[in-house]
Amino acid sequence: MAMVCLSDFEAYAKKYLPKIAWDYFAAGADDCTTRDENILAYKRIRFRPRMLRDVSMMDIRTKILGSEISFPVGIAPTGFHQLAWPDGEKSTARAARAMNTCYIASTYSTCTLEEISAAAPGGLRWFQLYIHRNRAASQQLVQQAEALGFQGLVLTADLPYTGKRRADVRNGFRLPPHMKVKNLEQAFEVCKMSLLDPSVTWNDIYWLRSLTCLPIIIKGILTREDAELAVRHGVQGIIVSNHGGRQLDEGPAAIDALVEVVEEVRGRVEVYVDGGIRKGSDVLKALALGAKCVFIGRPALWGLAYKGEEGLQDVLRILQDEFRLSMALAGCASVSEVGQHLVQFSKL
Amino acid sequence: MAMVCLSDFEAYAKKYLPKIAWDYFAAGADDCTTRDENILAYKRIRFRPRMLRDVSMMDIRTKILGSEISFPVGIAPTGFHQLAWPDGEKSTARAARAMNTCYIASTYSTCTLEEISAAAPGGLRWFQLYIHRNRAASQQLVQQAEALGFQGLVLTADLPYTGKRRADVRNGFRLPPHMKVKNLEQAFEVCKMSLLDPSVTWNDIYWLRSLTCLPIIIKGILTREDAELAVRHGVQGIIVSNHGGRQLDEGPAAIDALVEVVEEVRGRVEVYVDGGIRKGSDVLKALALGAKCVFIGRPALWGLAYKGEEGLQDVLRILQDEFRLSMALAGCASVSEVGQHLVQFSKL
Amino acid sequence: MAMVCLSDFEAYAKKYLPKIAWDYFAAGADDCTTRDENILAYKRIRFRPRMLRDVSMMDIRTKILGSEISFPVGIAPTGFHQLAWPDGEKSTARAARAMNTCYIASTYSTCTLEEISAAAPGGLRWFQLYIHRNRAASQQLVQQAEALGFQGLVLTADLPYTGKRRADVRNGFRLPPHMKVKNLEQAFEVCKMSLLDPSVTWNDIYWLRSLTCLPIIIKGILTREDAELAVRHGVQGIIVSNHGGRQLDEGPAAIDALVEVVEEVRGRVEVYVDGGIRKGSDVLKALALGAKCVFIGRPALWGLAYKGEEGLQDVLRILQDEFRLSMALAGCASVSEVGQHLVQFSKL
Amino acid sequence: MAMVCLSDFEAYAKKYLPKIAWDYFAAGADDCTTRDENILAYKRIRFRPRMLRDVSMMDIRTKILGSEISFPVGIAPTGFHQLAWPDGEKSTARAARAMNTCYIASTYSTCTLEEISAAAPGGLRWFQLYIHRNRAASQQLVQQAEALGFQGLVLTADLPYTGKRRADVRNGFRLPPHMKVKNLEQAFEVCKMSLLDPSVTWNDIYWLRSLTCLPIIIKGILTREDAELAVRHGVQGIIVSNHGGRQLDEGPAAIDALVEVVEEVRGRVEVYVDGGIRKGSDVLKALALGAKCVFIGRPALWGLAYKGEEGLQDVLRILQDEFRLSMALAGCASVSEVGQHLVQFSKL
Repeated sequence: MAMVCLSDFEAYAKKYLPKIAWDYFAAGADDCTTRDENILAYKRIRFRPRMLRDVSMMDIRTKILGSEISFPVGIAPTGFHQLAWPDGEKSTARAARAMNTCYIASTYSTCTLEEISAAAPGGLRWFQLYIHRNRAASQQLVQQAEALGFQGLVLTADLPYTGKRRADVRNGFRLPPHMKVKNLEQAFEVCKMSLLDPSVTWNDIYWLRSLTCLPIIIKGILTREDAELAVRHGVQGIIVSNHGGRQLDEGPAAIDALVEVVEEVRGRVEVYVDGGIRKGSDVLKALALGAKCVFIGRPALWGLAYKGEEGLQDVLRILQDEFRLSMALAGCASVSEVGQHLVQFSKL
Repeated sequence: MAMVCLSDFEAYAKKYLPKIAWDYFAAGADDCTTRDENILAYKRIRFRPRMLRDVSMMDIRTKILGSEISFPVGIAPTGFHQLAWPDGEKSTARAARAMNTCYIASTYSTCTLEEISAAAPGGLRWFQLYIHRNRAASQQLVQQAEALGFQGLVLTADLPYTGKRRADVRNGFRLPPHMKVKNLEQAFEVCKMSLLDPSVTWNDIYWLRSLTCLPIIIKGILTREDAELAVRHGVQGIIVSNHGGRQLDEGPAAIDALVEVVEEVRGRVEVYVDGGIRKGSDVLKALALGAKCVFIGRPALWGLAYKGEEGLQDVLRILQDEFRLSMALAGCASVSEVGQHLVQFSKL
Repeated sequence: MAMVCLSDFEAYAKKYLPKIAWDYFAAGADDCTTRDENILAYKRIRFRPRMLRDVSMMDIRTKILGSEISFPVGIAPTGFHQLAWPDGEKSTARAARAMNTCYIASTYSTCTLEEISAAAPGGLRWFQLYIHRNRAASQQLVQQAEALGFQGLVLTADLPYTGKRRADVRNGFRLPPHMKVKNLEQAFEVCKMSLLDPSVTWNDIYWLRSLTCLPIIIKGILTREDAELAVRHGVQGIIVSNHGGRQLDEGPAAIDALVEVVEEVRGRVEVYVDGGIRKGSDVLKALALGAKCVFIGRPALWGLAYKGEEGLQDVLRILQDEFRLSMALAGCASVSEVGQHLVQFSKL
Repeated sequence: MAMVCLSDFEAYAKKYLPKIAWDYFAAGADDCTTRDENILAYKRIRFRPRMLRDVSMMDIRTKILGSEISFPVGIAPTGFHQLAWPDGEKSTARAARAMNTCYIASTYSTCTLEEISAAAPGGLRWFQLYIHRNRAASQQLVQQAEALGFQGLVLTADLPYTGKRRADVRNGFRLPPHMKVKNLEQAFEVCKMSLLDPSVTWNDIYWLRSLTCLPIIIKGILTREDAELAVRHGVQGIIVSNHGGRQLDEGPAAIDALVEVVEEVRGRVEVYVDGGIRKGSDVLKALALGAKCVFIGRPALWGLAYKGEEGLQDVLRILQDEFRLSMALAGCASVSEVGQHLVQFSKL
């Protein structure tokens, strides 16, 4: 089976992953409307390609928060990579480093932050944080991440409670006994109730700020109002995201929300987006609409499920090739030439 | 079979109810366009969820006409509950009381008002009235309802004649011999022709007013013009409704009509809506667009068909949990924080 | 099989007519887009129904060019009724008279005008004319129709050449040998080439005017510009029509074109519409948008195919019942109360 | 099997061509969205047909760059005609001449320009050029084309690199060993890397201008900005085209881009369009929106696949008949009467 595009990896993962793992990765909240809209919304954006520009020398590199990456696609934070591949997040870290891009490791990793760091020394990594009721545990994680060389702290804002994912309820989803959320093992012992703290507010950004010198990126913003609040509270970056459609169903598609966030932010901080990226041309659309970089979630998991580190590299390489080709066919030789003039919204 | 969402109850009812009963409950007029639009119209509304608000203490209670209910979902008036469950409306009344919400008992109940009252003393109930040609019979029912402690009188305005529901015509639908429209047994004996009075006009609100001290709620309003007339004729509440799509096909979806009614009414009376509610987030959308409360029709019948009183409680509990979670994920800790800023209409 | 709505007759006809006849009646030009749009366009129109009006006494009669009909639905001109029922147009004439409505007999009838007249003396009938190259033959037909008591002359304007109906080409459609276009037998002998005259222009209205005192109705108008020309050339009525989607594919749906024609005509002549009527509520929509009456084509043929005169009466009676019910549920007790306030165009 | 419309030829070709050849001709880039949109976009355009005009004498001829053709449909440049029919481009040339229309021969022909010329002396032909890294080879081809009597030079602007056509990647598409890109045999020997020069810019129009007196037509323009640049750089014609959806996926449909290009060009040069033409009425729509002529790609290949020269003539004759009929039914007797008043964009 030739792996030609990302759907090929999706088909492979659906076929070979245990159903409970596939369902967990694929799940959207409620009717999965937002999960699917994330993809459909990209299709409603049309290119306005320009011709006869010299695209013989293509430069697709970019920088996020000052660090250069080989192309504007990073790995979004997702949990439980061992469900996809035995080495779990260690493989993810290796693939990201090999492709010279950024990997956002999740609080809900099945490897410790030390293991992730040790697996791919020198790689560009950010750490994604859920603030837990046990604030000391959260503090410890943040400081550990900083000490291990993670270069950004990503606060997930859209999960005061977990969304209702019907398939997971039906399956009674839980991690197999031999896997653990290793970063939280201690914390899990402290309290049996849900560890997530639903009382987190904007003021907690100041608390995080007091804990670390790392840049803080907030993930899960979908409105201009919250984008303005994020900027005012001093974050360094915003990831526009609806959590892959796994939290509140029937909110905006990620790429649609990006437009209003970028408009509000007016360049004061970097804006990224995740959710619905399936082709290199989707990356180009997101950049044209103002994203500095995109992050992929499920496609990275499909790559892991296919062949671990190597499979994820395949996924990234395909996206990279498609992105480069899309840029060239749209008439851009470097990322700096990409702008809103390249796209229009279809009326259909 | 795990009952995770309302569609699970629908599937159960479709499988286990006699076809003639399922068809009667499921029926829409003509092509069933409006019945189906009621659901689709909710999907065209998108949330604008807000992040990082303290949603640790959720309060989802509300009041309708001064009475507190545990969450803004009541039971819409539907006929013939014994078709779904042997105890019929008695089970409905018990479930509504157990969940601390409002049940609107139909003129076309298969239990008497006394039986309904006795089944769940102290429950919050309104009585739904069709005005019949035999005005004395209607008067008697209204006064009996008031005497039995019903706290509201719901006048259905959209049924001068019964809509054309093709499946019922094909099935030759009629109640099985052992079931009776008990509230009307006497009236049925008086005249053989259709009992519904198609000459009812707005002035009959004054007549009703003369019969009872109960608040009058008018059900079946779909336009701003009729909403204004309702307010002027002194009703206390309006239920925006197209009768579940069972009367005039190809009128507006209930949630779309709600918007124009709310705009016209400007808070002078309470506005409710029924038709198309299938998820907790639908309730949140209706509230964001100005409804004080929603009512569910078919889903209540599916709950009854599943396990009577217990099944209906399951349905209500699922809606309650979903509504609470949607509110939290949208950033609202109490119903008073829900407003139009939470939603936008999709252009698609 | 219960005949509950017009689709039931369609299903019957599709099952029992010879394929070549079914295909001929069902055919649309090219991709059949306009044929299907005629129906879909009705679905995009939404009612704004009004409540609590006295609809106990319903009056659904109307007048067309001064003649009263029992409800605003007549029989559109279609050819070759013997393909549907042995008695052909004689049955059609009888059914129309029995239901007290207007029948427009086609030039391409398989009975002579005399036979049609004799079959249902006293019925309200108009005669539909194609102008042929042999003008004398056309003149003779017009004058014969007038002499036989036909009360209107309908000039079809949209068929300078016959549209390309792929199924007819594939089937090699032609009348069976025992059927004849009896009104044109002589004309057919005169010339072998196509008899239709593609050089007809607006000036030929004056020529028709010189031949007969009958009111002239022009059929096939789809634009405001042509509507204005029709009025200026002195016609008494306009039938907005795209020939059931059988001529130029991908023109406007009939009901959409009606809106612009009515706007242009401003009541100077009566405007009718055919194409896409499948339910009583479609009739109500057309009237709300300014049509004085609608005409049905294919549904009449399905009725004939079902049981000849009796089947066509069934079709008309169902439409009549549905129309009366729709009017009542929309809050109108007589046709004079129907107006544009009753409808709105869906944005979807 | 009767060949009634172009879809019949498509079905034939799909059935009888080797899969690898069918896939190559059918391929679109990535998700094939633009390939399919080319067709769907025509369906969103509605005619406004006019009645009672004298259409007895139809004249469907037109001129492109001064040369008369029998109707406004030419053959777009496509590669590898021997994949469809043994005689390849020689058959194409003969059919185009027989039907008195223009054939644009591709650089990637499987016959030499001499063979094509010799096959149909006197036919109207343009030569399509890809500029290659080996500029001398390109120069030689241009001058050879001029010497052989080709009357126009078509520069393809949208292929700095080849689009990603998944099926071709999966099939490992390449020409069978017995076929050759004969025009480039020498060039192919010179270098093994891709021959296409991705550094081509607008200035290369001046270089081409210096090589030949032929009119230069630029193919692949999709925006008003590039249309203005084309005019300023002195081209004689513009072919609005997205390369049949084979290059950048999710750009505009060809007919939608035509509208903005025509608006920008304001008649300063001739504008043509290719992509999505499947019926005679599509040709009429393109002309109404300002195209001087359209070109067909895949339908020509289906015709070749059916019966070579004869099959392509069948395709052209069907389009011609359909175009003539559409014009007549829309009320136009000659191409000069076709204008924007004939069409409107559907809101759906």
